[in-house]
Amino acid sequence: MKVGGRGYRSIWLAEDGWAVEIIDQTRLPHGFVTRRLETLAAAATAIRDMWVRGAPLIGATAAYGLALALRADPTDANLTRAAETLIATRPTAVNLRWAVEDLLARLRPAAAAARAGLAYARAAEICDEDVAINRAIGGHGLGLIRAAWERSGQDRPVNLLTHCNAGWLATVDWGTALSPIFQAFDAGIPVHVWVGETRPRNQGASLTAWELGQHGVAHTVIVDNAGGHLMQHGRVDLCITGTDRTTAAGDVCNKIGTYLKALAAHDNGVPFYVALPGPTIDWTIQDGLAEIPIEERPGAEVAEIAGMTAGGDIASVRLVPEASPVANPAFDVTPARLITGLITERGVCPASREGLRSLYPERHNQ
Amino acid sequence: MKVGGRGYRSIWLAEDGWAVEIIDQTRLPHGFVTRRLETLAAAATAIRDMWVRGAPLIGATAAYGLALALRADPTDANLTRAAETLIATRPTAVNLRWAVEDLLARLRPAAAAARAGLAYARAAEICDEDVAINRAIGGHGLGLIRAAWERSGQDRPVNLLTHCNAGWLATVDWGTALSPIFQAFDAGIPVHVWVGETRPRNQGASLTAWELGQHGVAHTVIVDNAGGHLMQHGRVDLCITGTDRTTAAGDVCNKIGTYLKALAAHDNGVPFYVALPGPTIDWTIQDGLAEIPIEERPGAEVAEIAGMTAGGDIASVRLVPEASPVANPAFDVTPARLITGLITERGVCPASREGLRSLYPERHNQ
Repeated sequence: MKVGGRGYRSIWLAEDGWAVEIIDQTRLPHGFVTRRLETLAAAATAIRDMWVRGAPLIGATAAYGLALALRADPTDANLTRAAETLIATRPTAVNLRWAVEDLLARLRPAAAAARAGLAYARAAEICDEDVAINRAIGGHGLGLIRAAWERSGQDRPVNLLTHCNAGWLATVDWGTALSPIFQAFDAGIPVHVWVGETRPRNQGASLTAWELGQHGVAHTVIVDNAGGHLMQHGRVDLCITGTDRTTAAGDVCNKIGTYLKALAAHDNGVPFYVALPGPTIDWTIQDGLAEIPIEERPGAEVAEIAGMTAGGDIASVRLVPEASPVANPAFDVTPARLITGLITERGVCPASREGLRSLYPERHNQ
Repeated sequence: MKVGGRGYRSIWLAEDGWAVEIIDQTRLPHGFVTRRLETLAAAATAIRDMWVRGAPLIGATAAYGLALALRADPTDANLTRAAETLIATRPTAVNLRWAVEDLLARLRPAAAAARAGLAYARAAEICDEDVAINRAIGGHGLGLIRAAWERSGQDRPVNLLTHCNAGWLATVDWGTALSPIFQAFDAGIPVHVWVGETRPRNQGASLTAWELGQHGVAHTVIVDNAGGHLMQHGRVDLCITGTDRTTAAGDVCNKIGTYLKALAAHDNGVPFYVALPGPTIDWTIQDGLAEIPIEERPGAEVAEIAGMTAGGDIASVRLVPEASPVANPAFDVTPARLITGLITERGVCPASREGLRSLYPERHNQ
């Protein structure tokens, strides 16, 4: 999508054809900085330190990370070590594991000399597949927004609410939850997006707001606490969020606080949709609450926050008394019963085993 | 309660017997700074700029503000002007209006020369009444915590969750929601409190955590988004919050985000109590959602945040892109149907017209 009028993807090959370039998303929204990755270690750091985030982009970065590792050393031992390094960076990211295992299966049988080339080619293919998937998600979600606009009488913008960042920065392009919004905007449907800031890392305020602003989409940033109040007063027509991990029964594990918004939507009769690419579905689990381990991240993410000073520098300030302990669960599980529907690249379905089976019959036959 | 081992109230007369001293709560938790108020304008600033906050303390500060105004000029015209100035500082604070009108009714008939003395005496009485009310709230709430401890088998601490700051800093002493917790702690019941940071002004992280820490009560700070996840996993035994305004039917208007926590408590079978002094009940309204106007505060409270730098200074940093609009509704309404009970100075009752009638029969006969 567009940054300052110029089209970008969130990851691309450098002009030299072997290094990988990304946007350092920790510098947004105050600085637009790209970084050049030349090694496996750099790719792992990019994932672990969240220069890149979002399931699809993490998967694409991991794929290129393997390519960089094999360019340096294409042996079996290095392939295994590189895969382990990458998988260890973010334990809950199912897409990361999927991408690494996909490449492993293709590269293990290949001759060492051919591996790097195969890995680059497959990484590029994963990127293109992600873009195609997200474009398709957007097309199906666009139908929901258009229907909401028609229901509303077409005399005011459709009010959407999203949480965290499931925009193009979280994917290779288009995004998942934001893809329908970008497509509705591009189709001339007037939309306005309530953007929850998404504490503790504030990906809503810093990334979603920035993406929408760069593309020209009307939006308003709110604290996460405000979403329920807006729904109580009829100021939200539709919620759309992303998901890090989706169970075969339609439960979704997404950024902490998603569950609270889903409760409010349910309590106020506001449709709550979750947008996801098929590869993020974890077909091996059913009950998200019982089966998904929740990543506990460092307390400093809650106790301190970074922003731009009056002088234009980026600085971190402490919010919590020195003596107070902090807990930081990074995700929560929204049970399928609170979700109106899942928006996938194959269409919209109920958040249930039956709904997913109707769209992915081949996975249920496994 | 205690600060550094020494007992404090949140408002007190200076040693000279006429100026009023308060704690500048905007400086907490990183600095403990008291301020001396000598004029009506200073008292109004203290309320408007939230050096003092919380319904009971705002009421007490307004009462002393009238006393300061009358000490300077005891005429009818000044009395009226002072009352209007104070009421305009925080439109949703029913306790503020109550305190001002209580004093007006006593002072209007009095001789000008007697007014300042009467105002100081009544302000002191309002403070003492507040302390007595909060002590009684704590006693009734203590029973609920003791019962939870007994239900849990007494082999682990009782886990409580609170939102915003309804501690002694929000009142003259003891607090409302925290009074039961302080009393349980003092009675030897092991308690642990999940403290939601309470964006945008972070009164949980900065005030509640500080209060509990100074008193020695075990606690953990979390982002507001995390409360639902903790309840889903059985890590909260009891929620207790305060309220700025309570309707005759038991709806409560409290800090933005309270509604989301009540939804999560309801969804997970966690008891959700609201602690309140009788004077904060607004007997003139029933339906909180339809009848309570929600204060919209400046967007800068969301877009910027203050904290302590690594160097120990207090600095403000910007979190939101410059071009992005921000909305900042400061309160939301939690409907009575989501509230397990109201904890008042007269006992615990269901959040309903009938429940409140049983405790305050004289108000329902009006």
